[in-house]
Amino acid sequence: MIIKEENLRKIVERIFKKIGCNSHEATLAADVLVEADLRNISSHGVLRVPDYFALWKAGRVNATSELIVEHETLSTAVVDGDRGLGVVVTPKAMQIAISKAEKCGTGWVAVNNSNHFGIAGYHALLAAKQDMIGIVMTNANPLVAPTFSKDRLLGTNPIAVAIPVKDKEPFLADFATTGIARGKLVVLENDNKQAPDNMLQDKDGIPTTNPSILKDGGALRPLGGDRAHSSHKGYCLGSVVDIFSALLSGAQFGPWVPPSVSYLPVKQHQGAKGTGHFVGAIRIDAFQTKEIFYNRMTEWIDTFKHAAPIEGQNRVYIPGEIEYEARLNNLKNGIVIQIPVWEKLMQIADELNVVVDC
Amino acid sequence: MIIKEENLRKIVERIFKKIGCNSHEATLAADVLVEADLRNISSHGVLRVPDYFALWKAGRVNATSELIVEHETLSTAVVDGDRGLGVVVTPKAMQIAISKAEKCGTGWVAVNNSNHFGIAGYHALLAAKQDMIGIVMTNANPLVAPTFSKDRLLGTNPIAVAIPVKDKEPFLADFATTGIARGKLVVLENDNKQAPDNMLQDKDGIPTTNPSILKDGGALRPLGGDRAHSSHKGYCLGSVVDIFSALLSGAQFGPWVPPSVSYLPVKQHQGAKGTGHFVGAIRIDAFQTKEIFYNRMTEWIDTFKHAAPIEGQNRVYIPGEIEYEARLNNLKNGIVIQIPVWEKLMQIADELNVVVDC
Repeated sequence: MIIKEENLRKIVERIFKKIGCNSHEATLAADVLVEADLRNISSHGVLRVPDYFALWKAGRVNATSELIVEHETLSTAVVDGDRGLGVVVTPKAMQIAISKAEKCGTGWVAVNNSNHFGIAGYHALLAAKQDMIGIVMTNANPLVAPTFSKDRLLGTNPIAVAIPVKDKEPFLADFATTGIARGKLVVLENDNKQAPDNMLQDKDGIPTTNPSILKDGGALRPLGGDRAHSSHKGYCLGSVVDIFSALLSGAQFGPWVPPSVSYLPVKQHQGAKGTGHFVGAIRIDAFQTKEIFYNRMTEWIDTFKHAAPIEGQNRVYIPGEIEYEARLNNLKNGIVIQIPVWEKLMQIADELNVVVDC
Repeated sequence: MIIKEENLRKIVERIFKKIGCNSHEATLAADVLVEADLRNISSHGVLRVPDYFALWKAGRVNATSELIVEHETLSTAVVDGDRGLGVVVTPKAMQIAISKAEKCGTGWVAVNNSNHFGIAGYHALLAAKQDMIGIVMTNANPLVAPTFSKDRLLGTNPIAVAIPVKDKEPFLADFATTGIARGKLVVLENDNKQAPDNMLQDKDGIPTTNPSILKDGGALRPLGGDRAHSSHKGYCLGSVVDIFSALLSGAQFGPWVPPSVSYLPVKQHQGAKGTGHFVGAIRIDAFQTKEIFYNRMTEWIDTFKHAAPIEGQNRVYIPGEIEYEARLNNLKNGIVIQIPVWEKLMQIADELNVVVDC
């Protein structure tokens, strides 16, 4: 089914209010999730509301969280997310990073005790709106086996970098540090298709294209696939994200990062708190005048946009361009929601006595 | 042939002195290159001396460079490398980043007007020695085609992240953002072998395993390979490195980054200067007490080191571990230098009247 963006936003906002978020936070949470659907990243969109709701019911998410700054310097801070929704905690952490960058050029905030934060790109874009580069990463529950291992020790650990562009949408890189995202496996399963080679392995580490393999103890492989295709680089990236998100913040690392769904148990592990994020803001004019930077950024984009395409392709894309085009289209024509996702949303709305008047 | 590390260092140091480096800088330059050979990254070791020497003779490298700070804030600086050797300029830039981090938690320095800087990891390790995380990246002359393109628009654009570990070698991720490094192609050519699939393409963008393809207008592919294997992620990474290194610093970007060999011409392009780097230092105790961080880092390393290996593998490695083991071995047993590399070094020594007494 197709639903207008503002109507979807209204419903989700009301759900978050009903579980205890204040008005501002409910708007924020809905904005993060609907933004993912607008960009056709539905795996991180309103599809997640039932998971968040179940975690809240299980007492694993605190809808009335208060951010606590545990430690800070001029350019850094560590914040405790108070077991809050990642979609609420992370934009607040980014605001701290932005205000530090205003004062001393850059700002870096490590977050502990948080939860799933939606698309990393949303939070990075907050900086881009302020003439800053935004950098965002998070760890996640373990599904990825390091190079040469059969153990799942890392999450899909995404990285987003948003770079502002004058009078145009920002450059936005936003990607998991694995070859394939978990959400894509569900799509392949539903379509009865196989995954591309060298992205998955079974419980013994043997490569497979079976998209259901995670249920049988298999693992995602890091970006690259196997060692011959430089999987050690994806493993490096995923590890850096884990260490920045967990060890600089005081959150759980690797195998102990709590699952973002309620049906998987939290593994107890002393001395650290919840899911971790790391966000940063870099003020453009801490390096170059805005005028020079933006002129050159426009030149950079023109250069890459006009690269000669290979046969069978129309053009070369700037990171984030495809998702931005989807956004414009979905704002105009409405967001496509899968029926089961809509039905689950309606079930929650019903349970919480949320008015659905659209 | 095999040569003791201190003897190789002495020869290279004397060569740098003869072309005009002061004593401190010559020691530094030799240290960066010999460190690469110690770690078995010979493609970035003393093998580069003839290239640097030829660039110096061609007036494209300034051996008596003076770093100029063009702009700064509390946590950032832009420096002009004065056309200096990257191996001299970059450690100095990292020292500025470190001293900014001492004062305000983190320090970030963008460098323009520089040249090839050896292994990125060397510079990142400087921060790790000061209880800081070091981050280093550089752009490089264009050899890489963005996803869907046949044009070479990006360099191999490496990223290094060094994270200190108590009483042990640091965690060190240091990798090109392509599937295969250019240096490996030369090795494959010499051995008459083919490259793994999905790492190279010909001038029309058709995949090939021919390691000589760059000479015929072909290109390296970004980490991932093709779109089905997430090459857009490697393209994102390479682009971010290019923008940080060139647009924050005022250096040339993408297709206009000067070659690091003298036999390829410099493409003139107004308004920007030379090769660009971006370096950062993050003080550990700007986030966590050193004690807590180091305890958890040890736990992190133990967890990953003891992951179950797949059949046919003995163990799982921590990023940088293999190169560190090579270092210990080469310090003890000497560095293996290929005869042609040694002969070229001796030729330069002869030309410059460098005494070779070892």
